[in-house]
Amino acid sequence: MKYYNFSAGPSMLPEEAKLSAQKDFLDYKGSGMSVVEMSHRCKWYEEINDEAEALVRELMNIGDDYYVLFVQGGASTQFEAVPLNLLVKGRADYIVTGNFANKAYKEAIKYGDIVCAASSKDKNYTYIPDLNEVKFREDIDYVHITGNNTIFGTRYTEFPKVDNLVADLSSCIMSEVIDVNKFELIYAGAQKNIGPAGMTLVIVKKDAINNPMPICPTMLKYSTQAEAKSLYNTPPTFSIYMAMLTFRWLKKLGGVSAIQEINERKAEKLYDFIDNSTLYTNSVAKKDRSLMNVPFVTPTKELDAKFVKEASENGLLTLKGHRLVGGMRASIYNAMPEEGVDALIAFMKKFEQENK
Amino acid sequence: MKYYNFSAGPSMLPEEAKLSAQKDFLDYKGSGMSVVEMSHRCKWYEEINDEAEALVRELMNIGDDYYVLFVQGGASTQFEAVPLNLLVKGRADYIVTGNFANKAYKEAIKYGDIVCAASSKDKNYTYIPDLNEVKFREDIDYVHITGNNTIFGTRYTEFPKVDNLVADLSSCIMSEVIDVNKFELIYAGAQKNIGPAGMTLVIVKKDAINNPMPICPTMLKYSTQAEAKSLYNTPPTFSIYMAMLTFRWLKKLGGVSAIQEINERKAEKLYDFIDNSTLYTNSVAKKDRSLMNVPFVTPTKELDAKFVKEASENGLLTLKGHRLVGGMRASIYNAMPEEGVDALIAFMKKFEQENK
Repeated sequence: MKYYNFSAGPSMLPEEAKLSAQKDFLDYKGSGMSVVEMSHRCKWYEEINDEAEALVRELMNIGDDYYVLFVQGGASTQFEAVPLNLLVKGRADYIVTGNFANKAYKEAIKYGDIVCAASSKDKNYTYIPDLNEVKFREDIDYVHITGNNTIFGTRYTEFPKVDNLVADLSSCIMSEVIDVNKFELIYAGAQKNIGPAGMTLVIVKKDAINNPMPICPTMLKYSTQAEAKSLYNTPPTFSIYMAMLTFRWLKKLGGVSAIQEINERKAEKLYDFIDNSTLYTNSVAKKDRSLMNVPFVTPTKELDAKFVKEASENGLLTLKGHRLVGGMRASIYNAMPEEGVDALIAFMKKFEQENK
Repeated sequence: MKYYNFSAGPSMLPEEAKLSAQKDFLDYKGSGMSVVEMSHRCKWYEEINDEAEALVRELMNIGDDYYVLFVQGGASTQFEAVPLNLLVKGRADYIVTGNFANKAYKEAIKYGDIVCAASSKDKNYTYIPDLNEVKFREDIDYVHITGNNTIFGTRYTEFPKVDNLVADLSSCIMSEVIDVNKFELIYAGAQKNIGPAGMTLVIVKKDAINNPMPICPTMLKYSTQAEAKSLYNTPPTFSIYMAMLTFRWLKKLGGVSAIQEINERKAEKLYDFIDNSTLYTNSVAKKDRSLMNVPFVTPTKELDAKFVKEASENGLLTLKGHRLVGGMRASIYNAMPEEGVDALIAFMKKFEQENK
């Protein structure tokens, strides 16, 4: 059976990257070592680290005025690293558009004068607040947003026009073209569009990292890894290696603009099918729908459970929705091939007919 | 050519664990997913997480009064997590026996009244201070030691007899039998005796984690991961999976007491050879010699460089010593087979004859 894994993260990785990692697993490039056994100071690993950074820069068109860092601890650690590094005046505004946005906001409150400038909680986070109506305070260190909301299936299609924008792009990084110059800092857990769990990508303006709070742990300071080219201590070598393989795959495919076209086609197909169906509903405001995470429900919980079970038996895996939303969620990240979405739609169609 | 990798970390992993990971890499147990693609909330991964924890408990004979946690960020992050979680009275004493011990001490100073109770810096860390002569202060939260000093090749053969002992056992965990009940907290980066880089093992007394400092980031609080069974956020799934495979291998081999016997034999052979040679020297106090890391030098830097180069050409990899010590270092962790040490000694013998 052909399997498609719709997990929200960790999630599918490109077939090519997996095959390459498997093939080289016992002996990397004739080194006599597996990548998992290699000193992070040896030439083979330094090449991997350098190539991974270079590919991020190329794929996202990042200038020399930004650091590209590979760190540990997931986006959850960045919820704290961001205020600990960027609060200088001690003030920041957050837009709360979901569970993780709210967590980021709550963690920041511990370290400064933090305000929720806008929220979409009133409608269970099914939309992105109208940016024309959001007022940010004067004299703040940064504005924080969550670019794509994995659980609720929303995304920003434009960004707040502010000087110091910080964005958690964990579930949409490299899924569509963005102008990095509009951001002071971008962070993303790897386990959706980048690679295996265990690595977090941070892209940060060089001039923004010079004033961490005195209580900031050394390992959470961006300057620590910036000075060491992400090799201050032993990095999560295998995660970074597989990220490099994924970046190579994306580059070969034509880069972010090419995958954006595919992603838009995948999402449009799925939303169109849902909107035209009488069984399935997606309750997200159309203009704010995520390209990556598509939540949907049937009329009853029983039918939802039946759908998830039968889909799984047909090779369509991990479709159960998050408990905060219920129903189903199809995460269709970069590595989900278009055939996977086609297979899902075909199954949904069949299930609809059988369960009218 | 048969390769043996003497890297100080990341380092060799058991052949059996690597073969198993490679074999299952594309499809774990018929799930249709690679371990690197699996949701950390799915049943397969929860089984991995549970088995890994159970094996640590079994191998190290750990009681229910301790948490066993898998976290991220390496031992370097623990240098900060330890004081941030354990400083209640605000005072702790450190023994500084090397580079990492000193880093741990320096990080702790930021958070409390920290004293260096003893140091072996006077002789470039070639010995462990006499514990009978070390005086700790009254009313301290803990004493911190580094059980094995990777760079300098020393180890504690007995531990300070104090109530709240904290130990960095990164480079000796599971290499010899210890009584966990003597410790309040043990931490160890995985990339030496446990598995790939990216995961850190923490073993901590349950009643010790209830008073983190208010400034402690949520992700650095032990209680965060303790309450969530190490699944608060996405864990480094592949690292924990390979750690589980390594634990399985160790259990099959007969557990820690069995590997201790092998480790003692490996180390004894190598030290005996060095002590009886006219070319090589190890300057560590004999009673404090590490079972895991064996530094040695020839009379000249030129000969050291020649040794490292020719050894590498003969499949004996990563033998260059740390820059703070120079010369060579053979790291002979659990996964280094006895044949690897035999091959090293055979090469050293040949090199000695050729370079008299």
